[in-house]
Amino acid sequence: MFYAVILAGGKGERFWPASRALRPKQLLPITSDRSMMEETLIRLAPVVPNERVRVVTGAALAEPIRAALADLAPEHVWVEPEARNTAPPVAFAAAHLHASDPDASMAILPADHYIRDAGAFARALRYADRVARETGALVTFGMPPDRPETGYGYIHAGEKLGEEGPVAHYRAQAFVEKPDLATAEEYLKGGSHLWNSGIFVWRAADILEAFHRHLPEMSAGLEAYGRAVGTKSESGALENLFEASPALSIDYAIMEKADNVVVVRPDMDWDDVGSWSAMDRVFDADSAGNVFRGDVLSVDARECIVIGGDHPVALIGVEGLVVVRTEDATLVCARDRTQDVKAIVGQLKARPNGERYL
Amino acid sequence: MFYAVILAGGKGERFWPASRALRPKQLLPITSDRSMMEETLIRLAPVVPNERVRVVTGAALAEPIRAALADLAPEHVWVEPEARNTAPPVAFAAAHLHASDPDASMAILPADHYIRDAGAFARALRYADRVARETGALVTFGMPPDRPETGYGYIHAGEKLGEEGPVAHYRAQAFVEKPDLATAEEYLKGGSHLWNSGIFVWRAADILEAFHRHLPEMSAGLEAYGRAVGTKSESGALENLFEASPALSIDYAIMEKADNVVVVRPDMDWDDVGSWSAMDRVFDADSAGNVFRGDVLSVDARECIVIGGDHPVALIGVEGLVVVRTEDATLVCARDRTQDVKAIVGQLKARPNGERYL
Repeated sequence: MFYAVILAGGKGERFWPASRALRPKQLLPITSDRSMMEETLIRLAPVVPNERVRVVTGAALAEPIRAALADLAPEHVWVEPEARNTAPPVAFAAAHLHASDPDASMAILPADHYIRDAGAFARALRYADRVARETGALVTFGMPPDRPETGYGYIHAGEKLGEEGPVAHYRAQAFVEKPDLATAEEYLKGGSHLWNSGIFVWRAADILEAFHRHLPEMSAGLEAYGRAVGTKSESGALENLFEASPALSIDYAIMEKADNVVVVRPDMDWDDVGSWSAMDRVFDADSAGNVFRGDVLSVDARECIVIGGDHPVALIGVEGLVVVRTEDATLVCARDRTQDVKAIVGQLKARPNGERYL
Repeated sequence: MFYAVILAGGKGERFWPASRALRPKQLLPITSDRSMMEETLIRLAPVVPNERVRVVTGAALAEPIRAALADLAPEHVWVEPEARNTAPPVAFAAAHLHASDPDASMAILPADHYIRDAGAFARALRYADRVARETGALVTFGMPPDRPETGYGYIHAGEKLGEEGPVAHYRAQAFVEKPDLATAEEYLKGGSHLWNSGIFVWRAADILEAFHRHLPEMSAGLEAYGRAVGTKSESGALENLFEASPALSIDYAIMEKADNVVVVRPDMDWDDVGSWSAMDRVFDADSAGNVFRGDVLSVDARECIVIGGDHPVALIGVEGLVVVRTEDATLVCARDRTQDVKAIVGQLKARPNGERYL
């Protein structure tokens, strides 16, 4: 069977003041009136029904996520013993699924990405599952870039291995780090570099095999955990597994090393919605370049993003701002400085009573 | 006796969202933790005790003002039948005071000005009262400019008629309209043009005499009202007086025409606090030029004015903004566009439910 595993451990600090420790980006209605996780579930549903969706998150977020996602069985929200990047939770989820369904295939998905065309996503997911099942490949999704983005890693796509309509897949030639602007512009022109999206598809058996090969220090823990699934020693075995795991990303630990990696190139818009400044890629701007959500009044505002609610926010003669107003805090940020929202979060952390805003 | 009459009919729309129809600028704690009217009363107290202070305002504001100013007898908040600029309420107040105290002198003061040095103000007020009593002059306060302000009218001071320490008075040569920048710069250099502050001192008998001479159409009404004060026909006589009065400013109706006008030049900072951008003249800015009131976090903000409260407002990488955050609305305005706050008020007026924010 084809499962989906949503990695939902993120803190989403760059979405302060909307995001909070127990209400991170993935639980917020950033891109629509639904939370980003709900959107992810809805997008999956035509290919992977809710009962085959698993969520991996930390202890603190498990209850908020269970409460927010009524369509998900509470026992399908899995708690990782500690946050150790993406390789350990992927291994854990693969071992868990493989224990009950040795033929399982699985998609790995971030909880908080924006995909406008759910149909194209579903087609690409089915395509990737078929490639993974037919070839034993580790499939990663490479998104066609539409701008010289320097904030993403890239995958260099090599030889084309197959296609179906607008979806194709290629040998993954190389994973490359976030480029400088000149390099990103070359990538965009060249057409064979795709954005590394953090979406993967593989058979559980194949990714476990890759863990054994490329992270042999996890092998014993994975074997023990696989045997413990469904027994009283399951949670102890999981803790042991995480203790033995290096805190690496799945890209670095496996994808950059394995020789059976292919990249599926879907035909769709995609955004990782990394900060408030992504809002103009999610929502259409008005003729002055503004994206207004909530009750906004404007006199000569240009290129502004305002995220509000019932409380009116009035702009006069300002340009290139992000304004986010929540019940208990307000952000006014230059549009090219939204990465620095973390600095404000840092200032609040340093305050005696700051945690009430975090 | 020396009385003070505070003209408090203003709407203060330029201080939206802090100001509201029933909570205009003069009732707000703009320049300190006290309302601007309370500050005005406190400043007056050494020269004019509260029991000799009168407030003239419209029907809607009378109760909010009485409620806000516990130290003022409710019957000393006088209600004008309608808002007709400043000449009618000045005439009304003069006639009222003159009826019970033919020897009364009076200061006319706006409710919402900022004066840092209360001692200098008190000295200038006493000086002005002495000049008015000794010479029968109509005294206006001309404030020494410290910048080429184009938002104020000016008074051209002529021959010096007297002085006492740093306070002096001059013949008022001319009242001049708001100048352009080049003219304002000449005025600043020349030293004989003073800001027209809207603060006046005169004997009630002398200003009434001036009304009879320069606005004879008000004479009958003024005589009738003077006789009616303290009787059952007082309010009817007041309505008749206002109906017969042209809606003129006291400057235009009297000061520009009378030949016994002198200008007292106090030695003090003064600001009419005409908009949010005046806040940096009221409060000291930090080393980055920011004025922050309330809970403000900042990363690389420059030359910003933030008026908040407990609710944190975070600025990142922004310059030259005014941000005002109240319980039910937020303003983000370029610092040189605060005059346009009225346009937002206009937009709200045009909304079906807009009055809740006005």
